[in-house]
Amino acid sequence: MKILFDRPVIPGLGKKYVAIDGKFIVTVTDDRPEGEFDRVICCNNRLLMPGLYNCHTHAAMTLFRGYGEELPLHRWLQERIFPAEERLTNRAVYAASMLAAAEMIGSGIVSFTDMYNFNEETVSAVLETGMKANISRAVLSFDPGADPAKDERVLEGIRLFECCHGLGDGRVRIDMSLHAEYTNQRSYCEYIAHYAKANGAGIHIHLSETEAEHKEGIERRGMTPAEFFADTGVFDVPVTAAHCVWISDSDMALMAKKGVTVAHNPASNLKLGSGIMPLEKVLAAGVNVTLGTDGTASNNRLDILREMYLAAILHKGVNRRADCIAAGEIIKMATVNGAKSQGRADCGRIEAGCRADIILLDLDTVSNIPMYEPEYTVLFSASSADVRMTMADGKVLYENGEYTTLDIEHIKHELRYVCEHYFD
Amino acid sequence: MKILFDRPVIPGLGKKYVAIDGKFIVTVTDDRPEGEFDRVICCNNRLLMPGLYNCHTHAAMTLFRGYGEELPLHRWLQERIFPAEERLTNRAVYAASMLAAAEMIGSGIVSFTDMYNFNEETVSAVLETGMKANISRAVLSFDPGADPAKDERVLEGIRLFECCHGLGDGRVRIDMSLHAEYTNQRSYCEYIAHYAKANGAGIHIHLSETEAEHKEGIERRGMTPAEFFADTGVFDVPVTAAHCVWISDSDMALMAKKGVTVAHNPASNLKLGSGIMPLEKVLAAGVNVTLGTDGTASNNRLDILREMYLAAILHKGVNRRADCIAAGEIIKMATVNGAKSQGRADCGRIEAGCRADIILLDLDTVSNIPMYEPEYTVLFSASSADVRMTMADGKVLYENGEYTTLDIEHIKHELRYVCEHYFD
Repeated sequence: MKILFDRPVIPGLGKKYVAIDGKFIVTVTDDRPEGEFDRVICCNNRLLMPGLYNCHTHAAMTLFRGYGEELPLHRWLQERIFPAEERLTNRAVYAASMLAAAEMIGSGIVSFTDMYNFNEETVSAVLETGMKANISRAVLSFDPGADPAKDERVLEGIRLFECCHGLGDGRVRIDMSLHAEYTNQRSYCEYIAHYAKANGAGIHIHLSETEAEHKEGIERRGMTPAEFFADTGVFDVPVTAAHCVWISDSDMALMAKKGVTVAHNPASNLKLGSGIMPLEKVLAAGVNVTLGTDGTASNNRLDILREMYLAAILHKGVNRRADCIAAGEIIKMATVNGAKSQGRADCGRIEAGCRADIILLDLDTVSNIPMYEPEYTVLFSASSADVRMTMADGKVLYENGEYTTLDIEHIKHELRYVCEHYFD
Repeated sequence: MKILFDRPVIPGLGKKYVAIDGKFIVTVTDDRPEGEFDRVICCNNRLLMPGLYNCHTHAAMTLFRGYGEELPLHRWLQERIFPAEERLTNRAVYAASMLAAAEMIGSGIVSFTDMYNFNEETVSAVLETGMKANISRAVLSFDPGADPAKDERVLEGIRLFECCHGLGDGRVRIDMSLHAEYTNQRSYCEYIAHYAKANGAGIHIHLSETEAEHKEGIERRGMTPAEFFADTGVFDVPVTAAHCVWISDSDMALMAKKGVTVAHNPASNLKLGSGIMPLEKVLAAGVNVTLGTDGTASNNRLDILREMYLAAILHKGVNRRADCIAAGEIIKMATVNGAKSQGRADCGRIEAGCRADIILLDLDTVSNIPMYEPEYTVLFSASSADVRMTMADGKVLYENGEYTTLDIEHIKHELRYVCEHYFD
């Protein structure tokens, strides 16, 4: 299908024609491109930008949105989340993954990086809805004598990689995962690192989310959690490290050198009382930084525009400089940096030859006018309610409030049923 | 008109019938009240709560949304805002006030506390749209020899009070205003305090927004800005003090004793790099705290639900405790505390005898399900896009995306025209 976007405003590029053919952007031009189009989309009062990346989440945790509020991370996990997760089923995870996909698509997210359980259900949700995702089976290992090669979670992760990596013309990618330093044995880290390296997989981890975790890691290992992951070979493959609130300056340098991506989760880190990731320093160290929502249980939205706004204003406030971290940098974090972290070299940009992962925002809302500079409108006044179209690989997934690949009323009903029967 | 809200979820109260007659709530009951109603509103999947208060703004600054970004407060004011404000006209302020009213009504705000210029235009916007507001003429005085009794700004403020205070059955209230300590002479503060006390007016000020302002105030006066306002009699009347990022512990105690309201503006304070107001300490000191957006030039929304979310997560993060400041406290700041600060004793609560200032939020959205506790849904997942009705004094101002008291397309057109002709 050939589609022409008729002169939307594109941040950093101004007003252009954007033509797509099948799954790809073919031209971005000042003049109307030659040829016939199956559809021409009038983009008067529309802003066009790359689809957004949610680079750290647990999609199925929509089940636990608002469940166990106002508890610190450790108690929230131990007293509420872990016991509830014992009761998970395939049906619950599928329902919750579909709701998460709907929420993300409707707020302009085209791809997410997920760590959870019952992952084949999340894979199904991604394939059905037309989204993209890097999905991984969370591995936790508490028995120092256990053999990772015989661990059911590790084996599930490997089976997932073997069955699902690359499905949907690459829309689904499978990563390996280690939940965190404090929840894993060295042998498991080495085993997963070795498997990932041998098979070309990435690894998704939590890193230095809380001060206690970071300090206890140093006591336990004689090195920081980042140094531990480097030491066990984990950082020798593409890694997405979520949170990194408490990483040291030398951790930052190490991670920049190793090409580790930091997924910044400002809302979750604030809400759980974990602290504030030193974004300006991490960017200055040359680290690839992306944005994540974390699960809805600690956010409680899957809304990267909200994270962009938060990241934009939070670090200005904490560093007490209104010019701290330019708007364009935040937009990169939410788009091209995310694509890079997921191993999607042809995504995250509005350029000929790139995948047609595109969103349209409405500039004609009461809260988006006037517009002096599109970057600032995106960052400071736009919200997910302004998303008018979400397209992935050239396919429209959402347009003017309507989903094209999912039955939203059915999804909401199913999610409520599951929550009432399993978790109330 | 008699209206019955049929069993919405009300935070803190559960599911109730809420009946209104004319401008007032008459019953809040478990059982369906007797009698005939002109309208019964089915509130299945609806959350009902008091209309929100925006207790510090400059409504007409919608003109400057996104204008002069990434500058620190002092340069932003001196290089961008003050020169642009020299070019203000009645037409521009009216257009901008109408856009602001539309944005606020659409996001569930029923009343705002405003400090600006050409105030009669903002008064008109409030009267026409059905909102409520406390409006004041900003007074700045830089000439130590000037006589406040002959100052045009002071006289404008007094004329405004005499002409407009109490209009619209009390919907419009007029406050006096002193822009700030650093922008005023002692004689002006004393004069305004005296006038306000003699005439039963409140006073709206900016207080200790930046560290420089606070420290220079101490050097200039030999006392903190709060102590200066107390010393000049300003704190002897009801005062709303915006920002208070840098107030001292003894300032907090003083303000609690004097009954001064603090308007907390988390977004603006972060975005301008001013810092983070110590909310937990201010609440513990017993101060009445409300929320404000500040002008859109430094926010860039007029969205109290967004400020509520920010306030809720920011202080948990900064104080590193997930249980820092209960959800109910934030909801009070946005409702009943705001009504109190504006001298509206019969507003801000869902109770028989109170004014029918009511909003309905949609609980059946992809991002609001599941709901375990309504307070957390309001605070952490709801957004202004979920507002389905805004009612003030029993009159529906907005319902399901439609405004009943204003022509939104005309307002948007007029605002764009004004911006293009005056400020580009």
